[in-house]
Amino acid sequence: MFFASDNASGASPKIFNAIIAANDGYALPYGADDWSKAAEVRVSELFERDCAVFLVPTGTAANALALAAFTPAYGAIFCHDDAHIMDDECGAPEFFSAGAKLVGIPGSLGKITEAGLAATLAAYPRGLVKQVQPAALSLSQATESGTLYSVAEIAAFSEMAHRHDVAVHMDGARFANAIASLDVSPAQLTWKAGVDVLSLGGTKNGAIMCEAVVFFDRDRAADFLYLRKRGGHTVSKGRFIAAQMLAWLDDGHWLELARHANEQAQRLASGLRIISGVRLPWQPQINEVFAVLPSAADKALKAAGARYYDWGGRGLEGDGRLKPGEVFVRMVTSFATRPEDVERFLDVAGKAVNG
Amino acid sequence: MFFASDNASGASPKIFNAIIAANDGYALPYGADDWSKAAEVRVSELFERDCAVFLVPTGTAANALALAAFTPAYGAIFCHDDAHIMDDECGAPEFFSAGAKLVGIPGSLGKITEAGLAATLAAYPRGLVKQVQPAALSLSQATESGTLYSVAEIAAFSEMAHRHDVAVHMDGARFANAIASLDVSPAQLTWKAGVDVLSLGGTKNGAIMCEAVVFFDRDRAADFLYLRKRGGHTVSKGRFIAAQMLAWLDDGHWLELARHANEQAQRLASGLRIISGVRLPWQPQINEVFAVLPSAADKALKAAGARYYDWGGRGLEGDGRLKPGEVFVRMVTSFATRPEDVERFLDVAGKAVNG
Amino acid sequence: MFFASDNASGASPKIFNAIIAANDGYALPYGADDWSKAAEVRVSELFERDCAVFLVPTGTAANALALAAFTPAYGAIFCHDDAHIMDDECGAPEFFSAGAKLVGIPGSLGKITEAGLAATLAAYPRGLVKQVQPAALSLSQATESGTLYSVAEIAAFSEMAHRHDVAVHMDGARFANAIASLDVSPAQLTWKAGVDVLSLGGTKNGAIMCEAVVFFDRDRAADFLYLRKRGGHTVSKGRFIAAQMLAWLDDGHWLELARHANEQAQRLASGLRIISGVRLPWQPQINEVFAVLPSAADKALKAAGARYYDWGGRGLEGDGRLKPGEVFVRMVTSFATRPEDVERFLDVAGKAVNG
Amino acid sequence: MFFASDNASGASPKIFNAIIAANDGYALPYGADDWSKAAEVRVSELFERDCAVFLVPTGTAANALALAAFTPAYGAIFCHDDAHIMDDECGAPEFFSAGAKLVGIPGSLGKITEAGLAATLAAYPRGLVKQVQPAALSLSQATESGTLYSVAEIAAFSEMAHRHDVAVHMDGARFANAIASLDVSPAQLTWKAGVDVLSLGGTKNGAIMCEAVVFFDRDRAADFLYLRKRGGHTVSKGRFIAAQMLAWLDDGHWLELARHANEQAQRLASGLRIISGVRLPWQPQINEVFAVLPSAADKALKAAGARYYDWGGRGLEGDGRLKPGEVFVRMVTSFATRPEDVERFLDVAGKAVNG
Repeated sequence: MFFASDNASGASPKIFNAIIAANDGYALPYGADDWSKAAEVRVSELFERDCAVFLVPTGTAANALALAAFTPAYGAIFCHDDAHIMDDECGAPEFFSAGAKLVGIPGSLGKITEAGLAATLAAYPRGLVKQVQPAALSLSQATESGTLYSVAEIAAFSEMAHRHDVAVHMDGARFANAIASLDVSPAQLTWKAGVDVLSLGGTKNGAIMCEAVVFFDRDRAADFLYLRKRGGHTVSKGRFIAAQMLAWLDDGHWLELARHANEQAQRLASGLRIISGVRLPWQPQINEVFAVLPSAADKALKAAGARYYDWGGRGLEGDGRLKPGEVFVRMVTSFATRPEDVERFLDVAGKAVNG
Repeated sequence: MFFASDNASGASPKIFNAIIAANDGYALPYGADDWSKAAEVRVSELFERDCAVFLVPTGTAANALALAAFTPAYGAIFCHDDAHIMDDECGAPEFFSAGAKLVGIPGSLGKITEAGLAATLAAYPRGLVKQVQPAALSLSQATESGTLYSVAEIAAFSEMAHRHDVAVHMDGARFANAIASLDVSPAQLTWKAGVDVLSLGGTKNGAIMCEAVVFFDRDRAADFLYLRKRGGHTVSKGRFIAAQMLAWLDDGHWLELARHANEQAQRLASGLRIISGVRLPWQPQINEVFAVLPSAADKALKAAGARYYDWGGRGLEGDGRLKPGEVFVRMVTSFATRPEDVERFLDVAGKAVNG
Repeated sequence: MFFASDNASGASPKIFNAIIAANDGYALPYGADDWSKAAEVRVSELFERDCAVFLVPTGTAANALALAAFTPAYGAIFCHDDAHIMDDECGAPEFFSAGAKLVGIPGSLGKITEAGLAATLAAYPRGLVKQVQPAALSLSQATESGTLYSVAEIAAFSEMAHRHDVAVHMDGARFANAIASLDVSPAQLTWKAGVDVLSLGGTKNGAIMCEAVVFFDRDRAADFLYLRKRGGHTVSKGRFIAAQMLAWLDDGHWLELARHANEQAQRLASGLRIISGVRLPWQPQINEVFAVLPSAADKALKAAGARYYDWGGRGLEGDGRLKPGEVFVRMVTSFATRPEDVERFLDVAGKAVNG
Repeated sequence: MFFASDNASGASPKIFNAIIAANDGYALPYGADDWSKAAEVRVSELFERDCAVFLVPTGTAANALALAAFTPAYGAIFCHDDAHIMDDECGAPEFFSAGAKLVGIPGSLGKITEAGLAATLAAYPRGLVKQVQPAALSLSQATESGTLYSVAEIAAFSEMAHRHDVAVHMDGARFANAIASLDVSPAQLTWKAGVDVLSLGGTKNGAIMCEAVVFFDRDRAADFLYLRKRGGHTVSKGRFIAAQMLAWLDDGHWLELARHANEQAQRLASGLRIISGVRLPWQPQINEVFAVLPSAADKALKAAGARYYDWGGRGLEGDGRLKPGEVFVRMVTSFATRPEDVERFLDVAGKAVNG
């Protein structure tokens, strides 16, 4: 009953086998190997477009480096108030951009709104020297609240951003889960909707350590090799990351893994909805379930060894706010989540409430 | 006949098995897992001292982060003119230290000298506001020229540095090769000789991706977790790096791997020495062989598919300088180098020269 | 009728004379001159405490350098949403701190609240590695809205900050106006109320270019000389800034200048209050008047050559929000403001409204 | 007998009068005033070309900001080993460029050589990812050794730099002295010889605080306003710096001041040359005299209150090296140096040697 994070799972056997297969013989270091070249081709195929693809070991590196490629030191990066880059990366985007400012945009369900983006763009007019200058918009897909933007929403935000000469970044740490849920193509969800650069995350979806920065326009990637190198993110035995990416994308494996995770979240949500006193403030769209639990359920679950994350009161609004005797928690499923663990979780919670 | 770099080899089977074994079940992310804790204990045992140990994915990250922990933005980092941090990391130490200055010290065989260090320390007196302030000395052990400092040399440099309140960093990307060659204990070669922080490299010695920053005084590591995190070097599935470190150190495996690499270098050097027209400007002490080859040998080797690195004329002095019809090259062996490949290399070179 | 900014006035004759007097003979450069030493003594006397005092040419430099002395690159600086450091310095605090994050705290009248500060401190707990770490609280005294914190308020915020090991900075660009208005001593308003470092601004109050960073604890200033130097803010002919500071503080000249500016603001406010359709959403406490004007008055004033700043709708709340036919503007008076200009301004505005 | 630095003199009366005249009335802050606009026009006229001109308070700011405009964080800045930016600015160029590397080029008399520049450019090939990338060449005119580059030398270096897509910066802290000495036009010495950006220094030549960054191509200055602002170098009462620049350039005043300084250096050098035991290792071309003095002369001069700078042994070569009983010193003259002070200096030195 481990629902603390999708980072807590290991790797899929298929990905492991690919790593082992990659171990044979010699390969040029620092990304000059055949696997890395093949991964770039493979990702380009996936996105139906020639892309510049750079593999890096962590999602924080992918986000911070991708943003740095579009943001001068005197720039502003716009994102949701609760975005991972805002709250969970210890200032990495500021570091890699040499001191840019992250400007939060509020919004329910972890999503920015057109009105919020418009107001923020208006508050940072280009050319007003006393202020940092608009540079990038970062959209998390899926969001930190486990919700999704539609293709139309992304297109609308991108159009607004581009009109202000602001680049669009997508934090796709859970991009696989988003694609598995939305039933659109990777191209539709990204460059066709105006996204300029994507952090494509494999690690949370069954890899060991496999993230990519994907530029949909090669020209924008002109100096990325230097940014990555001086950030210490050019892995010497690059073939082992590339092999993961290849295996992950092979034959739809990535979506298979993501679908399983999403389905377990749906299973969990369905079961929770019918437990008395439990409420789901917003409906899970990927592999994360946010639920208000009665304290009795929370205690019983913890006693039974369940692991999940206390979310405080973040995001609960109006009548939905926490009442005495309630806790607000986040459960994350993964490719490795077993249905029986979900069932056991529901069983423990149900019994705690119903006696 | 792949002697371009020890980064070009894969990983040892033992290390692979450890990674696979670590895949079982769930583990807390970001270094809070049991493997990471065990690795810190294991490294501390190795160094016979309680150490603060931080795993990171690359050697550049290890060096740059370790130096940043000791160097203010207005600081000076002293190192050999040809040090990896000076020439091969695209400014990573400058980046992580927010703009510190690297000051090169000349010296034969890739080694700084006491006179050189003394002159440099004198040129950067503490308190002279117009100059950057002395902060760290970085010693590469082994050096970029495949040579080694003795314990006594390191102790002398450290003593000089500490007298000026300058911290001592050791770039140990090939620390295993150094230990295997010198027949001293890890403690003797580091903190007992005054080293404050070590970049301990496993990747070049049989791991996939496994580097550690080792602080010999926990107090100096107080804010390292933040530096690592905002550098994007806190790996989410940390157990997979830690498992490599554990396997690497287990039962002397790391020295076994390093000894093999060193022995192949000796085999290569011995064979080269007796080929007419070949000369070794300095004697290999680890797994690197630097040799001046007649062009005929160079051409024949390349035609036969041998891979090695053209070193230009760096480090050749006096009568040893390159003459027409010569090239200066670096060959690196690794845990994976097969004796038969060395023999074939020698055979091709010998025949090219002797007709 | 120039009320656009107090930066738009020149310098007081007394300060000019001091600069001219300082021109005689030779003086050591870079702050080693006698004037700079005397200025440090004089500022220390003013604050009834031995202070470390560093003169710099601009207020942005003073703020950014002062904060950098207390904030690591992975740090958080807390300030009001509308603080000058947040909105008007083009990211200088981020730059000088190597990428720290500014975290805004909301609050009416340009002032943070205890509840707001408490919530912010709670949101940035020390030791949570994924977030930037609490480092400094910056209080603007006077605020960007022309309001003031009481000594008790500052003491309460400082106490709260220090309990979290967070240093307290005061942006005193209009510190003279604050002292002139509050009738407390400089010591009471700063270190006795817990302030650790002050940006003391002379430029807006009658100097040409004269700002100081004042540390109330010398130990905290240990490396400030290097920060200032590498920021390019160590002026070579330092005596000319120091001479301004000495003349400014001499015989209460600074308060004389500030009192005049404050009085003209009161005169302006009193006159505006009785003009039909004009409202002052908050009461001026220093040399700034914020007023909602009927468009007719705005147009007539501009036609008559009056200069002031359009404030948008910032800070207006509830029923006070802008209605059609209204504009919200800021008028700033200075030591040089002539009463007759104020009277003429009121006359034009009054006639425009009353016909 | 104050020859320690040209920073130690005050300002010329003409410049003072201009500052006083500028005090009248109101002016828009932050460089939007009429004086600043006029200064840009005036500097453009001087250089016979439309220039983008940015006034800043210090020479370090001018250099660091100018270089930052051309240098990415992963860039290399080439300069003479003894350049001011290398040795005397506490890492400011590294800071403003977010961590670029300064690469020193050796050379006699404070001057780089074509061979030295060629070797350095070869050592930093564009596209070699492991190294910082060539970005800017900084030439000091006059040099730190008081010597000058000819127009032809500058043109040759610029041509070489541009061929490698490297921008050319000129540190003109003593540009006035150079022009006064070389009898060429400002245009000839800068953009006509390939210089892209100039730090134009007035402070050492009779101003209080007046430096400018001059871009000879407006397009390269596109984001300089932001760099200057976030560096804290956009002075609020900008008219007072601009007024200095206007007065300095008016009617050839700047050259009048520089010529006087240069002449006093020649007077000093002529007198020193004929004192027994004194030698001038290189011939003064501007307002700096470097001389090896017998210790007796040194002691007598100091006893008589003369101030100058002990230069150690820097720059002395071969037979010219310091012998026992000698000291190597630098004397700097300025617009304010009185001939009688030079004569007295020579008299004291002569008597000390001749008894």
